[in-house]
Amino acid sequence: MKIHNFSAGPSILTQEVLLKASEAVLDYNNDGLSLLEISHRSKAFVDIMEKARSLALELLGLEGKGYKALFLQGGASTQFLMVALNLLEKKAAYLNTGTWSDKAIKEAKMHDDIIEVASSKDAGYSYIPKGFEIPSDYDYFHCTSNNTIFGTQMKSFPDSPIPVACDMSSDIFSRSLDFTKFDLIYAGAQKNMGPAGTTLVVVKEDILGKVSRKIPSMMDYKVHISKGSMFNTPPVFPIYTSMLTLEWLKNLGGIKAIEEINEMKARVMYSEIDLNPLFKGYANKEDRSNMNATFTLVNEDLKETFETMLKEAGISGLNGHRSVGGYRASMYNALPLDSVKALVEVMSELETKA
Amino acid sequence: MKIHNFSAGPSILTQEVLLKASEAVLDYNNDGLSLLEISHRSKAFVDIMEKARSLALELLGLEGKGYKALFLQGGASTQFLMVALNLLEKKAAYLNTGTWSDKAIKEAKMHDDIIEVASSKDAGYSYIPKGFEIPSDYDYFHCTSNNTIFGTQMKSFPDSPIPVACDMSSDIFSRSLDFTKFDLIYAGAQKNMGPAGTTLVVVKEDILGKVSRKIPSMMDYKVHISKGSMFNTPPVFPIYTSMLTLEWLKNLGGIKAIEEINEMKARVMYSEIDLNPLFKGYANKEDRSNMNATFTLVNEDLKETFETMLKEAGISGLNGHRSVGGYRASMYNALPLDSVKALVEVMSELETKA
Ligand SMILES: Cc1ncc(COP(=O)(O)O)c(C=O)c1O
Ligand SMILES: Cc1ncc(COP(=O)(O)O)c(C=O)c1O
Ligand SMILES: [Mg+2]
Ligand SMILES: [Mg+2]
Ligand SMILES: [Mg+2]
Ligand SMILES: [Mg+2]
Repeated sequence: MKIHNFSAGPSILTQEVLLKASEAVLDYNNDGLSLLEISHRSKAFVDIMEKARSLALELLGLEGKGYKALFLQGGASTQFLMVALNLLEKKAAYLNTGTWSDKAIKEAKMHDDIIEVASSKDAGYSYIPKGFEIPSDYDYFHCTSNNTIFGTQMKSFPDSPIPVACDMSSDIFSRSLDFTKFDLIYAGAQKNMGPAGTTLVVVKEDILGKVSRKIPSMMDYKVHISKGSMFNTPPVFPIYTSMLTLEWLKNLGGIKAIEEINEMKARVMYSEIDLNPLFKGYANKEDRSNMNATFTLVNEDLKETFETMLKEAGISGLNGHRSVGGYRASMYNALPLDSVKALVEVMSELETKA
Repeated sequence: MKIHNFSAGPSILTQEVLLKASEAVLDYNNDGLSLLEISHRSKAFVDIMEKARSLALELLGLEGKGYKALFLQGGASTQFLMVALNLLEKKAAYLNTGTWSDKAIKEAKMHDDIIEVASSKDAGYSYIPKGFEIPSDYDYFHCTSNNTIFGTQMKSFPDSPIPVACDMSSDIFSRSLDFTKFDLIYAGAQKNMGPAGTTLVVVKEDILGKVSRKIPSMMDYKVHISKGSMFNTPPVFPIYTSMLTLEWLKNLGGIKAIEEINEMKARVMYSEIDLNPLFKGYANKEDRSNMNATFTLVNEDLKETFETMLKEAGISGLNGHRSVGGYRASMYNALPLDSVKALVEVMSELETKA
């Protein structure tokens, strides 16, 4: 049975990427060795790393604009810390739109003064605050472009008088934006870019080197940049698989092309949520995420029937995060429109039955 | 042609492990999904993580002795920092036996006073210092059990009045030791345990929680322990492949069994280095590593001939580290004795020719 994989992360990758990645584990480039057992200093791997780094910049339209791309370890959670260590001299401004923003704030607070310019915490993070001011005397502004757990997404970004750092873990490479508005972008690979185990950081070099603290080597963006993202042994396989995914996206037509498909998927999904009286969306309509659609059953009595039907249709990974409950359909780049259609079909079938 | 893979890291893995890892990338457990695209909170992955953690403790003989095993990101280089952040209150004692020790010292120095109890730096790290004192009023003692670059290995460990932290990146699981002598052991996976992308940390819980600094979440061993090594998304594939390697080792008979094979390989290798007048060992004889044999050609004129012969025999990854030059035969657990024999054959053939 074909599985429709709505997992929130780690999440679906295309079959073409999985095939190549699987082959590389046995034999890379027919040279008799697995990709896993060759030196990261070999030409074979250095080429992979450089290709991944340049594809990331190219897809974001940031080539030749003073940005560097890094593939690091530690997950987006380590970026919560690295952003503060590298950019925070006195105080920083954070927008609190979800669990991940909140954790980013917590890690940064350890180092210095943080203000929350706005927060939707009291409303269960069901919307994106707007109309707030970003103070010009702060070191940087931090936001989360897509809130994986709650299913909200920033549709526009405020003009900022200070550098902007953005956690794009769950919507990187999914939509066109003017990425030059951001000075630092980071994203764990395991949603739109690859398997778990590497984190993309794209940083404008001229914002670095301005804090007075000594930064430990592994935490220092400048160190990683100076070593071409190879200060120490990089996570070879996660980076290779991410590179394959970026290549796939480029061949598809890049962000513009995937954006259209993503918008289509989201339209199909949210129409069903809205039109079907059995379901209710969680997030504020205008802030709905094109990546993670969160919704609940109006009548909890239908839970068992619905979940049996989901299972029979091969729909997997639909459980909502424990802090929201209900369901979450994660519709990342690699999820085909057909999978959304399969889900919507089950939902409307339930309506017929009920 | 069969390749004999002497790479220093990332390095050889057994064929059996590579086959299973490759299959899992396409379909894990025949459930229609790749291991790369399922949630790390799924039972399938939680089982893998728990198995990896318990196999690590079991193989080291540390089960039920107050230790916890973690599979983290960031490489051994991040441990240089984490050891200091978690254990260093006032001052720490380090043994400097190579480039990696030296880097560990550098990262720790950022945080507080460090003394080097002894160093072989002036002698090009060609030997292991002995007979030094470990002061009892220091927070911990740090050493590197095997010096990957220089080919030296600590054959015994000093009695220590203070907790002992040891970087075992390049000889973990390769020989029997009384591992209860160590309070913290860490090792990047990419030599004896798996592919690049995860780092094993084995720590005695009672040494933690004694420093006054606030430790960032991702840097805090206690945080990772409390979350079962799943504080954030773990590097799924590197951990799975490491688990497979630990399973392979257990089925082989564990550390005792592999130690015999490793000793055999080292004997064959070093005999040839010593008996063949064309080659000279780099490391002090009594400190020679069973993992990395470093040697040079006595007559550099033979370089081209030797390297052509190596290539023809399918011998790969033998280049010495740039800071030592010459050759380095890395003979990690997964390297078969036959590969060492193949190398030794080329070396003696060169002698016949010359
Ligand atoms: C928006 C966002 N930020 C950060 C994280 C944490 O990422 P990691 O587990 O790689 O640390 C996640 C994980 O789901 C996320 O969705
Ligand atoms: C003994 C030792 N320690 C530390 C390291 C650094 O490991 P990583 O590249 O995972 O940071 C190495 C790498 O070769 C090593 O051999
Ligand atoms: Mg969130
Ligand atoms: Mg509805
Ligand atoms: Mg060394
Ligand atoms: Mg000799």
